[in-house]
Amino acid sequence: MAARGLDGFIVPRADEHLGEYVPDSAERLAFISGFTGSAGLAIVLADRAAVFSDGRYTLQLEQQTDAAVWERLHIIETKPEDWLAQHAAGLRIGYDPWLVSAEELARYAKSELVPVDGNLVDEIWADRPAAPMAPAVPQAEVFTGEASAAKRARLGAELAASGQDVAVLSDPASLAWLFNIRGADVAFTPIALGYALLMADGTARLFMAEAKLPAETRAHLGNEVAVAEREAFGPALAALKGKTVHYDPARMPVAIKTQLEAAGAIIAEGADPVALPRALKNAAEQAGSRAAHLRDGAAMVRFLAWASRALGTGGETEMSAAARLLAERAREQLFKGESFPAISGAGEHGAIIHYRVSPESNRPIRPNEVYLIDSGAQYLDGTTDITRTLWTGPGPAPAEIRAHVTRVLAGHIALTQAVFPEGVAGPHLDALARIALWEAGLDYDHGTGHGVGAYLSVHEGPAGIARTAKTVPLAPGMILSNEPGYYLNGAYGIRLENLVLVQPAEFPAARKKFLQFETLTLAPFDRALIDPSLLSPSALDWLNRYHARVNATLGPLLEPKIRAWLEAATAKI
Amino acid sequence: MAARGLDGFIVPRADEHLGEYVPDSAERLAFISGFTGSAGLAIVLADRAAVFSDGRYTLQLEQQTDAAVWERLHIIETKPEDWLAQHAAGLRIGYDPWLVSAEELARYAKSELVPVDGNLVDEIWADRPAAPMAPAVPQAEVFTGEASAAKRARLGAELAASGQDVAVLSDPASLAWLFNIRGADVAFTPIALGYALLMADGTARLFMAEAKLPAETRAHLGNEVAVAEREAFGPALAALKGKTVHYDPARMPVAIKTQLEAAGAIIAEGADPVALPRALKNAAEQAGSRAAHLRDGAAMVRFLAWASRALGTGGETEMSAAARLLAERAREQLFKGESFPAISGAGEHGAIIHYRVSPESNRPIRPNEVYLIDSGAQYLDGTTDITRTLWTGPGPAPAEIRAHVTRVLAGHIALTQAVFPEGVAGPHLDALARIALWEAGLDYDHGTGHGVGAYLSVHEGPAGIARTAKTVPLAPGMILSNEPGYYLNGAYGIRLENLVLVQPAEFPAARKKFLQFETLTLAPFDRALIDPSLLSPSALDWLNRYHARVNATLGPLLEPKIRAWLEAATAKI
Repeated sequence: MAARGLDGFIVPRADEHLGEYVPDSAERLAFISGFTGSAGLAIVLADRAAVFSDGRYTLQLEQQTDAAVWERLHIIETKPEDWLAQHAAGLRIGYDPWLVSAEELARYAKSELVPVDGNLVDEIWADRPAAPMAPAVPQAEVFTGEASAAKRARLGAELAASGQDVAVLSDPASLAWLFNIRGADVAFTPIALGYALLMADGTARLFMAEAKLPAETRAHLGNEVAVAEREAFGPALAALKGKTVHYDPARMPVAIKTQLEAAGAIIAEGADPVALPRALKNAAEQAGSRAAHLRDGAAMVRFLAWASRALGTGGETEMSAAARLLAERAREQLFKGESFPAISGAGEHGAIIHYRVSPESNRPIRPNEVYLIDSGAQYLDGTTDITRTLWTGPGPAPAEIRAHVTRVLAGHIALTQAVFPEGVAGPHLDALARIALWEAGLDYDHGTGHGVGAYLSVHEGPAGIARTAKTVPLAPGMILSNEPGYYLNGAYGIRLENLVLVQPAEFPAARKKFLQFETLTLAPFDRALIDPSLLSPSALDWLNRYHARVNATLGPLLEPKIRAWLEAATAKI
Repeated sequence: MAARGLDGFIVPRADEHLGEYVPDSAERLAFISGFTGSAGLAIVLADRAAVFSDGRYTLQLEQQTDAAVWERLHIIETKPEDWLAQHAAGLRIGYDPWLVSAEELARYAKSELVPVDGNLVDEIWADRPAAPMAPAVPQAEVFTGEASAAKRARLGAELAASGQDVAVLSDPASLAWLFNIRGADVAFTPIALGYALLMADGTARLFMAEAKLPAETRAHLGNEVAVAEREAFGPALAALKGKTVHYDPARMPVAIKTQLEAAGAIIAEGADPVALPRALKNAAEQAGSRAAHLRDGAAMVRFLAWASRALGTGGETEMSAAARLLAERAREQLFKGESFPAISGAGEHGAIIHYRVSPESNRPIRPNEVYLIDSGAQYLDGTTDITRTLWTGPGPAPAEIRAHVTRVLAGHIALTQAVFPEGVAGPHLDALARIALWEAGLDYDHGTGHGVGAYLSVHEGPAGIARTAKTVPLAPGMILSNEPGYYLNGAYGIRLENLVLVQPAEFPAARKKFLQFETLTLAPFDRALIDPSLLSPSALDWLNRYHARVNATLGPLLEPKIRAWLEAATAKI
């Protein structure tokens, strides 16, 4: 820092694409602080240092970092920008402009921040892993439903209609969707890291390591997509003088904005133009998701049938159960891996909303307790995400736990049954999933639902069902999770999650267009935890119809013993 | 225009305080165009002119304006700024900077707009009414619950804590609340037009015509409030050089901003600092509202009892019915007038959401039709706003109409019964009032609720229950309307409205604070229009408990015959 004339340096947990999952080469926060959580930030000054994360990671932050070196802070209670304004007044603080968006950077207006060429952590990180070089492969049109050329043409036309010449793309999931390619550069999300420029005429430039692009992929990209190394991206931005360039200040590195400004480009700010089209799954993607959910459902039922026997004995652990579920999924066709690290939480661990079991935290799943398993898979034809909450038995579940589970289920069903006009957005529906809990003075401190990709990110924008989500109107083709919960700290956690697909609702006489949800996820809810007397007739009817559908669709895919278990698990309540 | 070097002039329907109800002296749009609706705008060019309003006024706009002179346009379909950009490219268009907010003005960025000193309409308006000069009178502390000095001190302290020296106030309702005064300068809202500056030390300057301030009011204002004529406001702004001045760009004339900038003041933009405190009714205001609603309820019941006999005969009209209700209210203590022009709509007129009966539109209320009456009153101790939808009889109401009314009622009850944690805002609850309609492919094209003042504006910010409302968290003391509806064009309109008061909800074991609604409005819903089989047991129970409360609280206030009618009207369903 001294050599660069800096008094401090900011180390966010971010990669050069501001993605949720980052390659090992971008785990700078873990390298410098020891903290491996998925969200956080460190500020290093000459004589003091602080590391910030949120409530999910309070314990982990304390366990993994050295109190003698680091102040460990809750990022909501002590905002990094406030800490910096307090402890670094008048100091020059460096940051890597590839690891922060323009909007994030604006929060530090009170401090003197200096962009740094090259990351200071990398300079001292002797054994820094190499950047990932997994091949990017074509995603077949039977799954994508639309050729890249067609996607580029219609998005290019939208750019042209807005008077824009070029759109910058820095989200690898946007590249994956636009070019119909998938990669393996990070865990859980099948993306290939890179950048792109989409021109108003539908041609594009893709900046991605040559080594990641086998001949088949180059042929697939075609000659409307010029391919260049990552290093050519900067010069390409520098050549945009006088062009009107679309840039997303919320989701793209500020370095891109700086380079565009230096080049004399006219910046048109707006959301990543791929985000909304990507969220609107076409018929092929919808069919793929349904097919993936059939197979995922079959794997889930095999797991649940096993769990109904095995978990009550005390002979299994959180890790062994998660491994069993993964093994069941791995038996299914087109399986590519998990879509996120499974949350396998017994008893009090279930109350940790983003619990991730580790060899240190792993514990037996005991008889007569609540077990929560939130997991998902990537299949070539779709991405899944499901949470079930189980009673391990063999005794009956206490009435209070059943009441809590049933309230969560009532909320899940109320949202699933919602019919609503076009124009309604996720923040307007979030309360539907909570009213049954609110009536009892209960709530959960997370959103109700997030968008889900088509063999892409399991957390996909722009729409979500949460009070803090953007007011992006829900629209046919969007896949969202519906996952209310309830968490009693130190005791148990409840979450019930299906994925739902936004569909038109047919009212022949209606004067406006209405929408509804089609449930994609297929797996029974544990009847041992349901108190039917707490469900409205309409909700109970939904549950019975859903279970009947689960039985009818998955039964034929299962061997007789499992099928018999499913029959009983889905019998009318 | 030519003499001023202008090619056009904009005439909004607004006064110098950007209020909902304006004095006759500010009805410039009506003078220039003939259009008397409550929302609209005219643009006059040398050779063409357009007048804009919204869907509520499409018919009225055509009836009142001359097609040979005016293009009559729907303000959503053709935005004035777009019309101007198209028809006045390169032209200099004048506007009166006292009649437009900074935010509104920003919409015209594509055109060359020139602020004009003095309004051009006033120069040709020979018989322009004088500015209103109704006296501003003190509002007693038994009703306000807090002395002006205390209000000024706490708001001043908030300014100081934000590093601000002065807040500009241009909303007369903010003056009314802050100084505990009420006036009569406009219809329906008891305000005295003026401006004020609130200092961080809690002192203030009030700019209001001396003639409006009798000695009693001056004594009430005390010597911490310096009083000056309206003309002294400009010089006072000009004297704020170097001061940090709070200004609301959404609700205050841009002229104020321009003058502050010219003076060299530092402008701190933010919502009117009075808006939120004013919305949080204190114990005295809550008690006043309850008392006002008791008297208003008694008047409503006398009206409804009369209506149950009179409306089925065909001998009454929309105007005579509204007059009857007004007469019943006028019998009540502390009555000061209507809080807005009553919407008295029979049959197809009820489907016009903002229908205002006139001698031309007035029609008989016929047997066997739906009649909608949305009305409210100003009492010294509170403001009311209630809508009931009646079946005139004598025959039974058709099943379809009863189904529509019952769905509206189910939505009204679902919202009323909502329990929700602190942090939830109106846009998050709006859907609760609609789900019962949405399920049937029905909806209504207006918000569900607006804030209501304490003997102040019947439409008060900052909170509202609508998807488009601000996400201001609901908080104890807020009074809001709950008024879902359904409108079948050309046939009938349904709206059911009570006012509700946000209150804490007691859950001893809850880990966060919860809120609920206390219903203030007391009047039966017409059982002839309710199909109890379409209500959930919980909703029917609410209805019966509400009716029992109405009977128990209002019965003792009524003469025996009316009391007997109420007994029957509120009998258990």
